[in-house]
Amino acid sequence: MQLNIPETTQKRILIAGGGFAGLKLASKLANSNFQVVLVDKNNFHQFQPLFYQVATAGLEPSAISFPLRKIFQRSENVIIRVAEITSVHPEKKEVITTLGAVSYDILVLAMGVDTNFFGMKQVVQHAIPMKSVAEALSLRNRILQNFEDALIETDAEKQKALLTIVVVGGGPTGVEVSGTLAEMKKFILPKDYPELDFSKMNIYLVEAGSRLLSGMTEKSSAQAAKYLEHLGVHVLCNAQVGDYDGEQVNIGPVLKIAAKTLVWAAGVTGKQTDGLPAELYVRGNRIKVNAFNQAEGFEDIYALGDYAYMTEEKYPNGHPQVATPAIQQAKLLANNLKRQQQGKAMKPYTYFNRGSMATVGRNLAVVELPFIKFYGFFAWLTWMFVHLMAIVGVKNRVLVFINWFWNYVTYDQSLRLIIKPFVKKEE
Amino acid sequence: MQLNIPETTQKRILIAGGGFAGLKLASKLANSNFQVVLVDKNNFHQFQPLFYQVATAGLEPSAISFPLRKIFQRSENVIIRVAEITSVHPEKKEVITTLGAVSYDILVLAMGVDTNFFGMKQVVQHAIPMKSVAEALSLRNRILQNFEDALIETDAEKQKALLTIVVVGGGPTGVEVSGTLAEMKKFILPKDYPELDFSKMNIYLVEAGSRLLSGMTEKSSAQAAKYLEHLGVHVLCNAQVGDYDGEQVNIGPVLKIAAKTLVWAAGVTGKQTDGLPAELYVRGNRIKVNAFNQAEGFEDIYALGDYAYMTEEKYPNGHPQVATPAIQQAKLLANNLKRQQQGKAMKPYTYFNRGSMATVGRNLAVVELPFIKFYGFFAWLTWMFVHLMAIVGVKNRVLVFINWFWNYVTYDQSLRLIIKPFVKKEE
Repeated sequence: MQLNIPETTQKRILIAGGGFAGLKLASKLANSNFQVVLVDKNNFHQFQPLFYQVATAGLEPSAISFPLRKIFQRSENVIIRVAEITSVHPEKKEVITTLGAVSYDILVLAMGVDTNFFGMKQVVQHAIPMKSVAEALSLRNRILQNFEDALIETDAEKQKALLTIVVVGGGPTGVEVSGTLAEMKKFILPKDYPELDFSKMNIYLVEAGSRLLSGMTEKSSAQAAKYLEHLGVHVLCNAQVGDYDGEQVNIGPVLKIAAKTLVWAAGVTGKQTDGLPAELYVRGNRIKVNAFNQAEGFEDIYALGDYAYMTEEKYPNGHPQVATPAIQQAKLLANNLKRQQQGKAMKPYTYFNRGSMATVGRNLAVVELPFIKFYGFFAWLTWMFVHLMAIVGVKNRVLVFINWFWNYVTYDQSLRLIIKPFVKKEE
Repeated sequence: MQLNIPETTQKRILIAGGGFAGLKLASKLANSNFQVVLVDKNNFHQFQPLFYQVATAGLEPSAISFPLRKIFQRSENVIIRVAEITSVHPEKKEVITTLGAVSYDILVLAMGVDTNFFGMKQVVQHAIPMKSVAEALSLRNRILQNFEDALIETDAEKQKALLTIVVVGGGPTGVEVSGTLAEMKKFILPKDYPELDFSKMNIYLVEAGSRLLSGMTEKSSAQAAKYLEHLGVHVLCNAQVGDYDGEQVNIGPVLKIAAKTLVWAAGVTGKQTDGLPAELYVRGNRIKVNAFNQAEGFEDIYALGDYAYMTEEKYPNGHPQVATPAIQQAKLLANNLKRQQQGKAMKPYTYFNRGSMATVGRNLAVVELPFIKFYGFFAWLTWMFVHLMAIVGVKNRVLVFINWFWNYVTYDQSLRLIIKPFVKKEE
């Protein structure tokens, strides 16, 4: 079955994925002389860097999600379809989606990456990942429900397990989620649950490598660890999770922690798409591309951002899987595709590292810009400003700002709702 | 199993339900010389009058929901448990909840009412009710998903059914939801879906009685119908839905409408609780109470609001099932229980009707106050002011106001997200 898409004489660029890369590319090609077909499994763009605030009841999903159709209301040449790509057929220049087949002139794969559980089946079943707003919401519901359950639990050991949260992965997400949970423990939860003894609540941050925030300098890693420990997070480095059965986390050969919540932010992996040669996929299932983001061996297939593996002299293991290269590559590719259309040569990509940052809690953040590193209150302000400006939509920016301001002043959020999905019942 | 609740020498008032009545009663008894145990199936209070705005993507659930624990953070004597009452045992002065048994000195039943499908099994399965934020969200998802499906549907009849929405029930919810949908059709959806022909989108409002808003005067009913028809809603009175199989709505003996969405706001009913005598339940499964809200034949069991059936000379068929009597009864009962504690006599309740109102769309509303009726722009402003002031929490009020202001100025909401619940997958 063909997927129903308006006919046109324009060349068709099919973009798979509406994350940072896909959205930027589609925006730059809006109202150009291409037909852009943007395919995503959701009808909205998600702002990943703030998922942890959704998980910790600081923001609503809608504050960091933006409907794709609204973004492209004024771009007649951008067609949106809510679907997933199931296979690619380069010889026919066609992809198969969950809604039907679509032909393309140029295919851009920007599906990003998903959580990597490293093959641990029990962990998949019991841990909560953090790669979508739905997952973040589910973590929020789990934590709040565990507190409700702890209230009525009379067995002291079981109660302690309900109050224990283990966060796996010392990247920005792990640091941010454990820091925020520690602040909730300090400022918010005791007011909501005066019946509970909060000395029993423990938050662990478990990292397999030797330090947190491995993408930053050692000094920043140490600073982040110091902040977290100050907030009461138990930071465990060189500690690898071996298994989790929903009750107990096994770390290394000896350590066992009884915990009803395990947050998994320990790694990511791409997903191989049927129909593309297996040798195209390299480290972490990313697609090997040249400096023009062309998939190796293809002239009309591109990959962008997290899903693309491009090496440079300075980055022999590929670029970091963060927003900056995704956005930069998308901008350049939009220009390159327009240049191609005009018969001009394409320009190669080089990564311009604009810095990196992570926040731990109120007034606490670590920021590394190209020529300066700084920590604490100003780093925290910088973090907030950069993230606020990066959010799509003026209204979302206003709402996020009000929420942050409110939370900062009152030491309290008011989003602690356990909203269970509506399930049809028999009368 | 006993439900774990802190011990006290205070008398225990067990309140079942955190709606308008239960919440007001608990607030008025906060920091009194009673132990108040508030039991609700959700950990939040829901502001029912604005469910329709959640359903039509105008507001987020969190804007009109408020965590119960936050409300009672400063009230040591209020204990909250997220549970449902399954049975009452008056002889033991005990209720059984989904979490265990709880004894009481005084029991207050304020569980409200749920959707009444009048025994139509197929309708239960396929229609979407509007009695919780989860249901409202599910309606939002359904409508948006239907539009996505309509885009790729090549059969004209099937496409039309995807674009057709039938709203059943001409009360305030039915009027408000159909009016808002008509405005979305006019102002918002065509911008999101330029590929669709919106003349195919039809909104029906079906009412079994002879007029809309039967709780208001005939003049106001006629005005509301006029507003709705002006917005393009097909208003059908004296029309009774007989069946709905998910594809086709059967109305009366002849009319059939092909529609993929049926919103059911046609009636409500209480739910009988095991252990209470069946004769206690009268019209619409409400509990028969005296002027002190005491359940007939019981000294220590009360019922409030929608769940209570109290007659007065002016209201021989009971009070209307709206917020005002619920709140008034709760306030009086709080005083009466305190008076009782002091050995004073209780005061009887009489309903003071403060008026009623419904909004149809921007600048369009009908308002009836005790001494004046008015329609249009000022009615609409009044409606907004009254509802804004009734929402719990300053921040919620600010957020709702910003949302409304934004939507009014831009003719656009930005909450059109289809957020599917996170379901565990196998790797």
